[in-house]
Amino acid sequence: MTLLEDARRHAAAEIETVAMDEGLDQGTVRSLVASGHIAILRSSRSRAHPLGVGRFTRTKINANVGTSVDLVDIRSEMEKVRTAVRYGADTVMDLSTGGDLDRIRKMVIQAAEGVPVGSVPVYQAASRYSDPADMSSDDMFNCVRKHACDGIDFVTIHAGVNLNSVERLRNSDRILGVVSRGGAFLVSWMQRNGENPFYAEYDYLLELAHEYDLTLSLGDGMRPGCIQDASDRAKFMEFITLGELVRRARAAGVQSMVEGPGHVPLDEIALSVSAMKHICDDAPLYLLGPLVTDIAPGFDHITAAIGGAVAGMHGADFLCMTTPAEHLALPTVDDIREGAAVTKIAAHAADLVRPGQRERARALDREMALARGALDWHRQFQLCLDGERARAIHRESGETCTMCGELCSIKIMRRAMGKR
Amino acid sequence: MTLLEDARRHAAAEIETVAMDEGLDQGTVRSLVASGHIAILRSSRSRAHPLGVGRFTRTKINANVGTSVDLVDIRSEMEKVRTAVRYGADTVMDLSTGGDLDRIRKMVIQAAEGVPVGSVPVYQAASRYSDPADMSSDDMFNCVRKHACDGIDFVTIHAGVNLNSVERLRNSDRILGVVSRGGAFLVSWMQRNGENPFYAEYDYLLELAHEYDLTLSLGDGMRPGCIQDASDRAKFMEFITLGELVRRARAAGVQSMVEGPGHVPLDEIALSVSAMKHICDDAPLYLLGPLVTDIAPGFDHITAAIGGAVAGMHGADFLCMTTPAEHLALPTVDDIREGAAVTKIAAHAADLVRPGQRERARALDREMALARGALDWHRQFQLCLDGERARAIHRESGETCTMCGELCSIKIMRRAMGKR
Repeated sequence: MTLLEDARRHAAAEIETVAMDEGLDQGTVRSLVASGHIAILRSSRSRAHPLGVGRFTRTKINANVGTSVDLVDIRSEMEKVRTAVRYGADTVMDLSTGGDLDRIRKMVIQAAEGVPVGSVPVYQAASRYSDPADMSSDDMFNCVRKHACDGIDFVTIHAGVNLNSVERLRNSDRILGVVSRGGAFLVSWMQRNGENPFYAEYDYLLELAHEYDLTLSLGDGMRPGCIQDASDRAKFMEFITLGELVRRARAAGVQSMVEGPGHVPLDEIALSVSAMKHICDDAPLYLLGPLVTDIAPGFDHITAAIGGAVAGMHGADFLCMTTPAEHLALPTVDDIREGAAVTKIAAHAADLVRPGQRERARALDREMALARGALDWHRQFQLCLDGERARAIHRESGETCTMCGELCSIKIMRRAMGKR
Repeated sequence: MTLLEDARRHAAAEIETVAMDEGLDQGTVRSLVASGHIAILRSSRSRAHPLGVGRFTRTKINANVGTSVDLVDIRSEMEKVRTAVRYGADTVMDLSTGGDLDRIRKMVIQAAEGVPVGSVPVYQAASRYSDPADMSSDDMFNCVRKHACDGIDFVTIHAGVNLNSVERLRNSDRILGVVSRGGAFLVSWMQRNGENPFYAEYDYLLELAHEYDLTLSLGDGMRPGCIQDASDRAKFMEFITLGELVRRARAAGVQSMVEGPGHVPLDEIALSVSAMKHICDDAPLYLLGPLVTDIAPGFDHITAAIGGAVAGMHGADFLCMTTPAEHLALPTVDDIREGAAVTKIAAHAADLVRPGQRERARALDREMALARGALDWHRQFQLCLDGERARAIHRESGETCTMCGELCSIKIMRRAMGKR
């Protein structure tokens, strides 16, 4: 039985764990898992700590790691995994495309130390061929099975890239077409071979996912790659398909999430998130960005943090971190640290206004405000999202806050109001 | 005659300049300056390039520089001014409180090279005494006059900190009370001496401002210092007062802006900005932050960029940059560079959805998308907000994008679609 089927009958241990971690009532979590509004990332072959993603849960963040064709440095990738987890990543995705992929995947799962791990099986299927159109559909499904066997908890499946959405793409004014790598593999495949197997044989995929209790993360193959391409008909067509696929997954007892864009201007984020949530029957929503401008390479962790915070406020459940290397290179370990910290800030800013998490999140900020009012630096550093960084800046200035010194408003107010 | 009075009669050269810089029609700018919805920062003693702030204009960013009591390093402060201007600051404020303040102010104006310069005269007035309550009201007004004489373009005046708003503060549940330094000076002064002279003798202040065509930036003395303190009655009381003071400034032919908070949770930013704009008759709105969480010292440039972008989307006109050193220390030159870059991103993200600037801003992103589609790296770096940074990351990876290599979605789609 899958966790979703379990939840329809009784409360499994995983549901208890998620309820405890999220500060939610067990009955609430059970009914939200049963309805598919919370996914618990934890496949049957996995030893990960079960992680709830979706309504009322804390906004989660994912770190992408993995080799590329041009750069295979396994030690560095494992260091990235550990750094990501240390700085707050709730999950790690192995997106490797270079080197011994099977070995690297197992090493990532090992290094993630109990944090759920995701993957994109079609990357491995395509990486065997110089032209992705040469893949067989068996290659594609076999890679899903292999990843599930290895203990992967969730897989991105671009099943919404189908003949219908590709037709909408042809009729669009996009500048950048398809920028999702998995999406590009599949469009390329479909040009020669016809309908996307993940769509055409979705029932088979569901059987596979059911067997391993694998969560499907329905991929954002049509995601916009620039501000101008955002929220267009091709993207909405894909939402519609993904909504139908969510429904079929739930009927089959398989957990699913929906992935979302991409590059989106600030004033379309609310629209985009609300539409996805609505069309996809409140499936847990996993966002890549959104990046709120195209012109800030080197700072795309910031453009994504802005978009991610706004998306989180409107209901996104899960943010994929972007690093300073986005659009430029494979991230370094330092990039991962920076990306994790900044994405964590976006997630927490969203949690401060998120139903189900608001009170817990605000308690942290309240503690910080009290510590600040008490001029208790030690306590402030304890409460910081990245206390090391804060302490280093403070230390460099000689352990006093050189910004105001004795002209500190808190000190002045204390004297004026006769406190101490 | 002041620029505001000018605008009511005819189009002055400064209005032409602003119209040209902003890509707006001259008649539009003239009428918005005349109604006080755009302020042109450029006092009569200044040689700064006139800068428009307010409705339909590009979102502007300010960099705070200046010595503190504990740290007087004039060379470093001048380096900060030059760095801020180089990385996109539209204005600089000299907040010095340590060293020879008159000399430093003149040096900042010199180093700013034509960018308008602001100041907070009450800092200088208070810095002469060990207790700010010892200032005389003459000290306060004399400092305003001195700064205007030196060619300062805009001054923060905490005239909304009055007996009424302080009474609202007493009845509030704030954790941190007053965190504005100027606000704290004045509350402290009022405890002993009665009503705030900037409020009680506001007509005299207007005479002074009129004489030098100085823009009043009506300070945010009641700004919240933590998430819990946001958007409370004390803050709204101050908005009401500032709205009345904006009206009196306009009647006196004096340009004014309104300053805003502070620490504000994501879901109160729209409310806060709309209320300020509404209550203050659409005065140009100058925001400090807003910071969307309290628990990220070391990253408060990010928490402010998130809040600033959202505020900009809802109508904020002018963002004061926050640096990684906020809450911890006086910023270094590197902090200023980082703060400028990140604040610029927030401002541009807002401009992409801002009436009057949307088309111009989107043209930049469109160019970037085209360069990306053409895999034209040289052009991409030219279009970056910080091309140096992007180029450095790309160079480190050996001048190829190691993220995807040949599995680049753009390359795959080109081959699949038979382009080139």
